[in-house]
Amino acid sequence: MSRFWSPFVKDLVPYVPGEQPKVENLVKLNTNENPYGPSPKVIEAIRAELNDSLRLYPAPNADALKATIADYYGVDTTQVFVGNGSDEVLAHIFHGLFQHGRPLLFPDITYSFYPVYCGLYGIEPKPLALAEDFSLRVEDYRQPNGGIIFPNPNAPTGVLLGLEQIEQIVQANPDSVVVVDEAYVDFGGETAISLVERYDNLLVTQTLSKSRSLAGLRVGLAVGHPDLIEALERIKNSFNSYPLDRLAIVGAVAAFEDHDWFDHTRKAVIASRDKLTAELQGMGFEVLPSAANFVFTRHPQHDAALLAHGLREHRVIVRHFKLPRIEQFLRITIGNEAQNKALVAALKLLL
Amino acid sequence: MSRFWSPFVKDLVPYVPGEQPKVENLVKLNTNENPYGPSPKVIEAIRAELNDSLRLYPAPNADALKATIADYYGVDTTQVFVGNGSDEVLAHIFHGLFQHGRPLLFPDITYSFYPVYCGLYGIEPKPLALAEDFSLRVEDYRQPNGGIIFPNPNAPTGVLLGLEQIEQIVQANPDSVVVVDEAYVDFGGETAISLVERYDNLLVTQTLSKSRSLAGLRVGLAVGHPDLIEALERIKNSFNSYPLDRLAIVGAVAAFEDHDWFDHTRKAVIASRDKLTAELQGMGFEVLPSAANFVFTRHPQHDAALLAHGLREHRVIVRHFKLPRIEQFLRITIGNEAQNKALVAALKLLL
Repeated sequence: MSRFWSPFVKDLVPYVPGEQPKVENLVKLNTNENPYGPSPKVIEAIRAELNDSLRLYPAPNADALKATIADYYGVDTTQVFVGNGSDEVLAHIFHGLFQHGRPLLFPDITYSFYPVYCGLYGIEPKPLALAEDFSLRVEDYRQPNGGIIFPNPNAPTGVLLGLEQIEQIVQANPDSVVVVDEAYVDFGGETAISLVERYDNLLVTQTLSKSRSLAGLRVGLAVGHPDLIEALERIKNSFNSYPLDRLAIVGAVAAFEDHDWFDHTRKAVIASRDKLTAELQGMGFEVLPSAANFVFTRHPQHDAALLAHGLREHRVIVRHFKLPRIEQFLRITIGNEAQNKALVAALKLLL
Repeated sequence: MSRFWSPFVKDLVPYVPGEQPKVENLVKLNTNENPYGPSPKVIEAIRAELNDSLRLYPAPNADALKATIADYYGVDTTQVFVGNGSDEVLAHIFHGLFQHGRPLLFPDITYSFYPVYCGLYGIEPKPLALAEDFSLRVEDYRQPNGGIIFPNPNAPTGVLLGLEQIEQIVQANPDSVVVVDEAYVDFGGETAISLVERYDNLLVTQTLSKSRSLAGLRVGLAVGHPDLIEALERIKNSFNSYPLDRLAIVGAVAAFEDHDWFDHTRKAVIASRDKLTAELQGMGFEVLPSAANFVFTRHPQHDAALLAHGLREHRVIVRHFKLPRIEQFLRITIGNEAQNKALVAALKLLL
C-alpha cells in the first residue's frame, strides 16, 4: 500500500493465471492451450507482415479482422468488436455495460476473472449456485440485476448450456446485457451468435487462444448489437487506440480463413477428450460431461491436491482450484496423444 | 446512447489517432512514425519465435523484457512495468495513481489523450497554460493536485524541459505522482529515469513506437519506485493477464539489445530534423525548437489548415490540430531523405 495509489487499488484481488513454467519437458495440461499448433497459414501470414512495416502503427480499428469475422459469422462489421485477448474484451464489457448500481449475476463456479473485474470497476458480484451436477439453473437468472455473464461451456467444469436455455435467460432479462463467454464453444457447443440479430441485449465473446491455437498472439472478440459494440469502441478509443498489433491482425485473419485446419484440429481434440474420459472413468474417476478442451474430474478415493502434487512430481501439470465445492476436482487440459498417455501413466502410478 | 451503457460511456470523448491511410504512395508524415525500419535483429528474433509455440500463452509478466529494460537503465526489475503500448501503460497510471479527488495538472497544449483518460476514470483535468513560447512554467505546478503529467519533450510542440526543472516539479509535489511521458526523449532529451532512485513520486513512461521503430508491435513501459509499479501490476492483473504477446516480447527485447541500430537511426532522424528545420526557416516558416522526431511549425502568411489540405493534394500528409493557440501550426514528422524532399517540394508549390 502506498499513499500514491488510487484508493480502490489496495482492495484489488488480482486474477492468478495458470503457471507458465520456465522448466522444459513438462507435460503442460494446466492452461487449456491447444495441443496442436496454429494453422501454417497463420505463420505464413505473419511472416509476410514481418518487415519494415512494423515501424508503422496498425490499423486502429483492425478493419480487416472485423471484416473477416463478420463474414465468418454472417453479421455486419458494426456488430463486431476485437481486442487484445478476450480478457481485454471482457474488461471493457464490465466497464462499459455492467455499471448500473445493481448486482452482476454469474455462476458460483465459473471463470475466476469475473469477480476480479467486479473489483476493478466497482460492480457488486452476485454469484448464483450451480445445481449439484454443476448445471446452470435458468430460473435463478430471473431477478433484478445489472447484467449477467457466464461461459458456455462453463469453466472450469466444461458443462454446456443449450441454446434454448440461453435464449430463455436473454428473454427474461430485456433490460440487462447478457454476455455469453464462448472461449471453449468450438469444442462441442453451438455459438449463440445466431441469436444476436434477434436480441439487442445479447453479447457473445470468443477468443483465438483455444480452438485457433493462438494463446500466444492475444486476440479476442465480441459480437452483438451495434449499440453494445459502440459502448466497447468508445471505451477502447478512450483507453488504447491500437490494442492489436500488426502481426496479430494478419495472423487472426488467416486463422479464421483456414477452415480445414480449424476443423481438423478441433475434431482431434474432441476425439482425444472422449478417449481420455473413458480412460479416466476406467480408473475410477468421475468426469463431468465436457464440451470444452479440458475435463473436470475427481476421484472418490484420492485427494485432488495430492494428485496434482503427485502428477507434478511425474512432470505433468494440471490445474487445481482450492475453492469451495470444487476442491476435490482437477481440471485437465486435453493434450496430444503422447501427453494424454503420459498423464494416464502418471495417474496409474499414483492411484 | 443505449440504456445498456454504463452511465459514464455517453460522456466519453474518445481520442482520435492520426489517420492510417488505406491508399498507397502517400508521404506519411502525420503520426510520428520512424522513417527507418526496426533493427534487423528484431525481425530475426520474432521470426525465431514464429512457430507452434504461438499455441502457448506468453509469460504473463514478460519477465525477459523487464529484465532487459532493467539492465538497460540500471534499475531493478521491480521498478519496471510493461504494457501493450505506452497508451495502455498511461491508462493504468490514470486509473491506479491519479484518482484522488483532486485535479490532475498538465499543460494546456499537450498529448490530447490525457483529458480522454480523465473522462474514462472520472478525474478532473486542470490544464495549465504554457508560456507564449510554449515552454512549461515550472512555478505553475505548485498548487494542490492529485497528480501531474507532461510529455518531455512535449507533444505536439517538441519543446524540451530540462532535467533540473523536472526535478523541481517532483520536489515541489512530494504527495503527488509526477509522470514524465518520454515518448520522444531519445531524439534529443535526457531521460528522467536517472532520478527515480531518489524520488518515490516520479514515474517515467516510454514507448518502443518511435525511437525503436516498433509502432506496429505495441510495447510501452514505465520505470519508477516499486510501490508505483505495484499499483500498475495490480491493475494489469485485474484487467488482462497477458497484455504482451509472445512476438512482442521477443521483438522488444531484441530492440533494446541492438544499441548500434538504435544510435544510428536516431542520429539520422536528428540530422534530418536539423536540415528540415533550416529548409523550413528558409521558406519563412517559424519552427519551434524540437527535441522530438517531428517539428511544430507555422507560416506567418499561410493558413495551416489550407497548407495541410494542399499538402494532401500533393500526397503528403501531416497533422493539423484544430485547437486553440495551435490552429495555425502543422506537426510534421521527420521522414527519410526522400520524404523530406517531397515535403519541401510540395510546400514550395503551395507558398
